[in-house]
Parts: sequence; C-alpha cells; structure tokens
Amino acid sequence: MPGPDLVASPFDDLIGTEWLDDDPDHARARVRMRDDLRQPVGLLHGGVVSTVVESVCSRSTALAVHGDGMIAMGQSIDITFLRPTTEGHIEVEARARHRGRTTWVWDAEVRNAEGKLCALSRMTVVVRPQPA
Amino acid sequence: MPGPDLVASPFDDLIGTEWLDDDPDHARARVRMRDDLRQPVGLLHGGVVSTVVESVCSRSTALAVHGDGMIAMGQSIDITFLRPTTEGHIEVEARARHRGRTTWVWDAEVRNAEGKLCALSRMTVVVRPQPA
Amino acid sequence: MPGPDLVASPFDDLIGTEWLDDDPDHARARVRMRDDLRQPVGLLHGGVVSTVVESVCSRSTALAVHGDGMIAMGQSIDITFLRPTTEGHIEVEARARHRGRTTWVWDAEVRNAEGKLCALSRMTVVVRPQPA
Amino acid sequence: MPGPDLVASPFDDLIGTEWLDDDPDHARARVRMRDDLRQPVGLLHGGVVSTVVESVCSRSTALAVHGDGMIAMGQSIDITFLRPTTEGHIEVEARARHRGRTTWVWDAEVRNAEGKLCALSRMTVVVRPQPA
Repeated sequence: MPGPDLVASPFDDLIGTEWLDDDPDHARARVRMRDDLRQPVGLLHGGVVSTVVESVCSRSTALAVHGDGMIAMGQSIDITFLRPTTEGHIEVEARARHRGRTTWVWDAEVRNAEGKLCALSRMTVVVRPQPA
Repeated sequence: MPGPDLVASPFDDLIGTEWLDDDPDHARARVRMRDDLRQPVGLLHGGVVSTVVESVCSRSTALAVHGDGMIAMGQSIDITFLRPTTEGHIEVEARARHRGRTTWVWDAEVRNAEGKLCALSRMTVVVRPQPA
Repeated sequence: MPGPDLVASPFDDLIGTEWLDDDPDHARARVRMRDDLRQPVGLLHGGVVSTVVESVCSRSTALAVHGDGMIAMGQSIDITFLRPTTEGHIEVEARARHRGRTTWVWDAEVRNAEGKLCALSRMTVVVRPQPA
Repeated sequence: MPGPDLVASPFDDLIGTEWLDDDPDHARARVRMRDDLRQPVGLLHGGVVSTVVESVCSRSTALAVHGDGMIAMGQSIDITFLRPTTEGHIEVEARARHRGRTTWVWDAEVRNAEGKLCALSRMTVVVRPQPA
C-alpha cells in the first residue's frame, strides 16, 4: 500500500488544497479563495477552514505512522473563528503537541494572506493498526 | 436585502447540500456521497460533515433573526466523529439550545442513510446588527 | 478491587457532590451552592460545573465497564456556559451517546434549581484494561 | 469597585490556587497536589485542572478590561487531558490569542512539576460593560 502522500485526496482536490509541509512540528497547507468556496454573504465558508485543518493534521499523522503499519483517523476537531476571510488565501500551520501510541493531539493556527490570525483549532487523531 | 434563504451559498452548492428544514427546533440538511467528497482512504471527508453542520446552524439562525435586522456569524464549532461514512448520504439535524440576544448555541447530530449516529457537534453562532 | 461506586472520591466530597443516578442513559448528580464554591463576583465557579460533569461521566463509565476488567479515564471535556448560577444548586444529567470499545462519548446538560439550562457539555472518556 | 485582583475568589482559595502572573501574554497560576483534590483512583481530578485554567483566563481578562468599566465572564472552555498528575503540582500558563471588543480567546498549557505537558485548553471569555 502506498504512503498517504501518494494517495489522492479527492475532497482536497475539489477545494484546491496545496500541501506545503508534512513535518509534524510545522505541517502546513494553503487554500486560495475562490468564489465557489464562499458562504451566502461572501466570506470563505468555515467548512473550508475545518477541512484544511483536518486534512493537514490527518495527513501528517498518517505519514508519520505509516511506516509502523498504522493508520490515522480523525476523532474530534474544534475551531474558534476569529476573523473572516474574503480574499487571498488561508494558510494552516499545525503542530502535533502529543504523539501518543493511540492518539495524536494537534494545535493549528489559520492565517490569511497578510499573516493575520483567522482561526484557532485543536484536533485529536486516532492511530490504530492498519486493517489486514 | 433578501432573506438568507434566497441568497445562494456557493460552497454548499459545490458539495451538494440539500436544505430539508429551517426550523431551529429541528433544522435539517443532507449531503449525498460523491467520489469527490472522499478523503484519501475513501471515507466521506470530515470537512464535509463540518461544513453541513455549520451551514445548517448558521442558515437557520440567520433566517430566524433576519426580520430583526440582525445577521449571524459562526463563532466556534466542535465535532466528535463516531462512525465513518462510505456511501449513501449524511443527514444533519440541529436544534438551537440557546437563543440569546448575542449568541445562539446549537446541538447537531449527524446520521447516515441507515439512521446510525456518525457524529455529534456543538456550534455557537454570533448574532449582531446588520452593518448599515 | 471494589467497584468505582465503593471508592471515595475526595474532590467530589470536597465540593459536596451528591450522586443521584449512575445509569448511562440518564446519569445524574447535584451540587448545592455554598459560599466557598463561588468565583470573585459571587457566581458559582465554572470549575465546579466542569468537575460535576466530569465526575458523572467518568463514574458512570467506570461502573459500566468495571465488570469487564476495564477502567475509565477522562480524555477531553468541553463546556458552554449559558446562564450563571448564584443560589440553590446545579444538577447535571448526562447520557452516553457512544459506548465504544475504547471510548465513551457523553452529552451532559446542567440545570439550576428552577430547571433552567445553565450549561451544555460533551465529554470523551477513554476505556482501557485495568493495569495488572 | 475594587479591581478583580483585590476581590477574594472563594473556590480558588478552597483548592489553593497561587497566582503567579496576570500578564495576558503569559498568565500563570499553580495548584499543589493535596489528597482532597484527587478523584477515585488517586489522580488529580480533572475538574481542578479546568478550574485553574478558567480562573487564570477569567482573572487576567477581568484585570485587563476593568479600567474600561468592563467585566469578564467565561463563555466556553475545552480541555484535552494528555497526562495524569499524581503528585507535586500543576502550573497553568495561558496566553490571550485574541483580545476583541466582546470576546477574548485564550490558549492554555498545563504542566506538572517536571515541566511535562499534562493538558491543553482553549477558553473564550465574554467582555461586557459592568452593570450599573
């Protein structure tokens, strides 16, 4: 089975996620604003933000544990929105604060193109043996 | 300005959200599984789940407060994933547990096509006067 | 080893927790207002609320899995405060929404003596084999 | 009305909170382990951890906005527990990541006496005018 970096991620392709870094100390990805990513009043939909955070944390965990025959699955995510985004892009930077045997816990910051903080998130990813 | 139900929601259109009910006691929406909504190992991406919950809660709040000249903006959302989805659809049912002057707090349940619970979520939506 | 219902819980004793029901479908406990449970402006301290929720969910999980040689440990808790409490008591009612092999997920409601909703909480409890 | 640092906090007194720093960039407090702060199997009760985080974030917000005639009230808190504590003390260090007109958002880390990370928390504190 190929590593998670070689497997397509269709929903990330749909929203245009660009993978910038897979290192669990500073994993990063970016999504550029597009009109079809907006909610009714024209802001970037918060679901796009949730998606990128979840993708970054899950992907980096999966890459880190893949060599040990483990897979990663999202268990929970919470996001606090601080500033709406209307143009440019968002960039997520995530850091694994806990890398346990059964769970990884991530902190993520979401910034806009000017580097201003737009959201804070925490995600817990479950690590378990790859099904036979 | 038209009510929120008359305004297009581009990201919801992109993922195919179907609005079923706007009542804050049992607001509902559904998204059908499509291949471009999957994450790398073939499950429905958790970001799709977050998106639908956020859309349902924000839209129903916006509809309820629109007549008073107020708008609604997501402040925070948390999701706990309980069961992965691979086919069929997900349906979100959300209930406004607190309808305050400045915030609404929602509980949402996400179920698959068999009615099994897939995720639990809580969302806080800020209510504020419409900008002049 | 005695079941968790027979073991003293010193911090619950300190704040005066009264156990009302251990059933995972409607586990309940109550704490009566006392002056030493207040925060600086005289409200019941939110930490008391967090404590009772955590105690109810952990205790009921522990009781339910104890017969299988398992123990329960809190993994995460989130609370949204809706209404301050100044007198009377708070009562927590919690329901296990997911009873998995490795985690239980609880929803809890906190009400005051008039039955009004004061807080909503979700807690995840890890279940694991009792150390030898 | 005296500033929040001059007002007694009875529940913090009960658990023995020591205030170390009120600066919103690195607010800190400590609680020493005592037998009456334990849960049934002898660990520091998670409710003590929640209490200290909430106290630090609320107190530092209150101190910072008091001069403008504003008060602070906890709106929500979430905690992820990473490592149990059995002896010594816990120390909370919190940083205000967002200092808005109506809400402050805090990140907090909880460490044991050896400096090891025991819990991560995020808290939202509402800021509003002091009642007349």
